[in-house]
Amino acid sequence: MIRFPHRHLLGIEPLDATHIQTILDTADTLREVLERPIKKVPTLRGKTIVNLFYEASTRTRSSFEMAEKALSADTLSIATAASSVTKGETLLDTARNLEAMNPDMIVMRHACAGAPNFLAKHCKSVIVNAGDGAHEHPTQALLDAFTLRQKRGKLKGLRVAIVGDILHSRVARSNLWLLPKMGAQVVLCGPPTLMPPGLERMAKVTHRIEEAIEGADAIMMLRIQLERMGGGFFPSLREYHLRFGLTVERLARAKKEVVVMHPGPLNRGVEIASEVADGPASVILDQVTNGVAVRMAVLYLLLGGGEVTA
Amino acid sequence: MIRFPHRHLLGIEPLDATHIQTILDTADTLREVLERPIKKVPTLRGKTIVNLFYEASTRTRSSFEMAEKALSADTLSIATAASSVTKGETLLDTARNLEAMNPDMIVMRHACAGAPNFLAKHCKSVIVNAGDGAHEHPTQALLDAFTLRQKRGKLKGLRVAIVGDILHSRVARSNLWLLPKMGAQVVLCGPPTLMPPGLERMAKVTHRIEEAIEGADAIMMLRIQLERMGGGFFPSLREYHLRFGLTVERLARAKKEVVVMHPGPLNRGVEIASEVADGPASVILDQVTNGVAVRMAVLYLLLGGGEVTA
Amino acid sequence: MIRFPHRHLLGIEPLDATHIQTILDTADTLREVLERPIKKVPTLRGKTIVNLFYEASTRTRSSFEMAEKALSADTLSIATAASSVTKGETLLDTARNLEAMNPDMIVMRHACAGAPNFLAKHCKSVIVNAGDGAHEHPTQALLDAFTLRQKRGKLKGLRVAIVGDILHSRVARSNLWLLPKMGAQVVLCGPPTLMPPGLERMAKVTHRIEEAIEGADAIMMLRIQLERMGGGFFPSLREYHLRFGLTVERLARAKKEVVVMHPGPLNRGVEIASEVADGPASVILDQVTNGVAVRMAVLYLLLGGGEVTA
Repeated sequence: MIRFPHRHLLGIEPLDATHIQTILDTADTLREVLERPIKKVPTLRGKTIVNLFYEASTRTRSSFEMAEKALSADTLSIATAASSVTKGETLLDTARNLEAMNPDMIVMRHACAGAPNFLAKHCKSVIVNAGDGAHEHPTQALLDAFTLRQKRGKLKGLRVAIVGDILHSRVARSNLWLLPKMGAQVVLCGPPTLMPPGLERMAKVTHRIEEAIEGADAIMMLRIQLERMGGGFFPSLREYHLRFGLTVERLARAKKEVVVMHPGPLNRGVEIASEVADGPASVILDQVTNGVAVRMAVLYLLLGGGEVTA
Repeated sequence: MIRFPHRHLLGIEPLDATHIQTILDTADTLREVLERPIKKVPTLRGKTIVNLFYEASTRTRSSFEMAEKALSADTLSIATAASSVTKGETLLDTARNLEAMNPDMIVMRHACAGAPNFLAKHCKSVIVNAGDGAHEHPTQALLDAFTLRQKRGKLKGLRVAIVGDILHSRVARSNLWLLPKMGAQVVLCGPPTLMPPGLERMAKVTHRIEEAIEGADAIMMLRIQLERMGGGFFPSLREYHLRFGLTVERLARAKKEVVVMHPGPLNRGVEIASEVADGPASVILDQVTNGVAVRMAVLYLLLGGGEVTA
Repeated sequence: MIRFPHRHLLGIEPLDATHIQTILDTADTLREVLERPIKKVPTLRGKTIVNLFYEASTRTRSSFEMAEKALSADTLSIATAASSVTKGETLLDTARNLEAMNPDMIVMRHACAGAPNFLAKHCKSVIVNAGDGAHEHPTQALLDAFTLRQKRGKLKGLRVAIVGDILHSRVARSNLWLLPKMGAQVVLCGPPTLMPPGLERMAKVTHRIEEAIEGADAIMMLRIQLERMGGGFFPSLREYHLRFGLTVERLARAKKEVVVMHPGPLNRGVEIASEVADGPASVILDQVTNGVAVRMAVLYLLLGGGEVTA
C-alpha cells in the first residue's frame, strides 16, 4: 500500500511534486490492468462511489465510471437534470443527503468554482473534483502530465505551450499549477480578451501563437466553447482559426518531437486543424486512454485500496 | 431465513403490525452491513431489479440503488423522459415488456395513485411502490418508523405531529397508516385548504401548529411543493412560514427529547427554519442513512434472500 | 467455445444461414441461464460494454443491459441528450474517444443508416448495431427468428407476412434479409406510399392485408410511427386501421397455428387490435423474453466468451 497524504483531490494547487509523482507512478502500474484480458481487479470491491455531475459530460463521466468499474467499486451516477436539484434544494443539502447514504467517495462536476471545496469542508465523504467552473480540473492535468511523461520521457525542462481561451479554462488553470511544480516551463497564448491579467508571474504570456509554439515540446490546444461566441470575446470562428488555430504550418515551428494535446471535444477547423488532430504529433487519444488509468490511481490512492494485483 | 407473507410492498395499509416489526428488525440487522469496510453481501447475487421511475427523484432512486448494490443485485434504472413512454405506450404495456425480460422485482415511482397496485394485479414481477401520486410511499414511512424507534426506543405511545400539506402528501398517508398500527398517536396539522376531509377518524386534526407540537415526541414536517403555489392553496411562502413553519420557538413546546423529521428535499425558511433543520433535535440525515437499510430489508424479505452474513 | 467468423454485428445482410443458425442455437443454450434462480454466469467478467444510444429506447437498451449483466460484463450506458454530442463533436470523434477507453464492445443505436458500419470501419472496438435509421436492426430480426423457430418448430418453408410501414422500418429490412436466407417466404404489405420500390425481387408485395395474411404462418405487424403522420403517408390513423390494422376477423384468414409478432411499442387500435395483441396467437411478449437470450448469444459469440456453464 502506497501512502498518500491527501484526503480529497480538489485541485492541483494543494499538491506537492512528490504527490503528483506518486499519482503518475501509480497510474503506470494500474495502466497494465487495462491491458489484461480481464480488465478488472477487486481492489475497491464493496466501496461505493457517487458520480454527481451538475454539468453534462460524456468523456469525463465515462472515464471515471470505467476507472471505478475496473477497480470493482459500486457506482451511482447522478446527472442533475433528472434530480431533486430541480426542486430547489441547496448544493449542501443534496451533498449531505448523498453523504448520509455513506458513499465512500463523491466525484463531482459543478459549474461553480469552489463547489468541491465547499463540500469537502462540510461533508465527511472523500471528494474528487471532476471540474469546477473555471477553477480546476485536476484529473485532466494529471492525465496530461502522464501522457507528456509517457511520450517525452520526463516533465522537467519541457516547454509547454497552452493556447486558446485561458480565461475560462479550468484545464489551463490546473496545468498552470502542475507543470511548473514538475519543472516544466509554460507559455500561455490567446486573444487578449481571453487572457486573465496577472498570469505573467506564473508563465510567459503571448498573444502570437507563432511565438508560443516556437521551440515547444508540447502544445495544449484548448477548446473554444461555442456557447461563448455571444460574449464578444472574438469576432468569429473563422477569424479565431486564422489567428490562433493550430495548423500544420504553425506546428512546424515547434520541436521535431513535439506532441499535440487537446482535452476534447474537438472543434475541428476552429482551434485545431483536422490534419493536426489526426496527424503524427497528436496524442489526443492517448490522453483519453491514460485518463482511465490516472483516475484509477486517484481512486486507489484516496480510498487506500491495498493490494492491486489480483 | 425470515418468513414474510407479502408478495409485494404496495403500501403500508395492507401490512399488519407484525409485518412492520419484521421489516424494522431485519433493517436493524442489515444496517450493520453498511458499517463494514466492504459494504456488500452476496445475498441477492444474480437477481435483477428494475427501477422504473416515472417521476424525477434523486434521493429515493439513489437509496434504492444503494440498497440493491449492497445486496449484490443487478440493477436496471429507467427514467421515463428517455424512454418509450414518450412513444405513447400504455403503462401496462411498458410493464409487461419489462416483465417479459424476467426481472425479479420492479421498484416503481409513478405520478398516479394506484399505478403499482395495477401492475401487481397484471404482472408476475414483485412490485415495490417507491411513491405513487398522493397515495402511499411505504418505504418512507418505514424508514421514518425505523428512525423513530432508533431515537426514541419504541413507537408505542409516542405522540407524532405531522405538519404541512397533508392533502398532497403520500408520506403523510403512509405514516397515517403505519403509526397507529404500531401504537403511536398522530396529530395532523396544516392549512384547511391542504387538509383532506374525513381524517378525524384516524388522527387528531388541528390547524394550529402550536397545538400540534404541544407535548410531541416527534414532529414530521412535510415539504411544501413550490410548484403547487399556483393552486392558491396558501397566500405566500412567507405567510406559510409564519403560520406553519417549524421554528426554534415553536419547537420548545414539544417534549425535551423530541425528534424533528423531514422526508426531504428541504425548503429552508419555508416549512422549516434552518436552525431547526440543522439543530440537535433534527434526525433528518439519520432518516436518509436508515433509508438504505430499510430498503435493503424490504428487498431481502420480498426476494427471500436467504443468508445475509457473508 | 463456438467459432463465429464475424467481428461485428452490423446487419443481417452479411450473415450466412449457418451464422444465423449458430446465433439461434447459442441463444437456446443461454436462455436456460435466465431461468436459473441465479440468472448470471461469469462468462464476460472484466469485459466492458458501452451502450451508446443516439435515439431514445427503453426496450432495446434494457434488453441489452440485461443480457450484458447476465453475462457479468461491466456496462456503461450513454444517452446522447446528456452527452458531449450536444457540444458539436462528430460521431467519429465521440466513438474514437470511447474507443480510446478500451471498451470491448460498443452497442450503438443511431438515427442515421450506416452509422455502425462507419464506426466499424474506423474503430478497433467490436460494434453491435442496435438499430440504425431505416437500415437494419439485426438483433430484432434474430429474436423474431428465434421466437418463430421456438413456436413453429422451424423457419424453412414458413410463410411470413410483414405488414405496415415497410419504407421506414429497419425491422422489416432485417427480416427481409434473414427470412429468405433461412428458407422462409416473405409477403410484404402496406400502403403504396409506405412501400419502397424494387422489393418485388426479394418478396411478394401486396397492398391488401387480406391477401398478405391468407395462409400465413406468422404475421409481423410493424409500428406506425405517429411522428410520421405529418408526412402525408396515409390519411388518418382510423383509416390506416380500417385498411391495414390486424383484427380478429382478418387473422382468421391465416393458418390455424399462426403467430402474431410486433417489435413494440404497440399502438393498440392502430396497426393491431387489442384483442389480437393480447390474444392466443400473439407471441409479442415471448419476443421480448427471447430478446435477452438472443442478445446474450450475440455478445457471447462476438466476445469469444469461452465457457458458459458456471
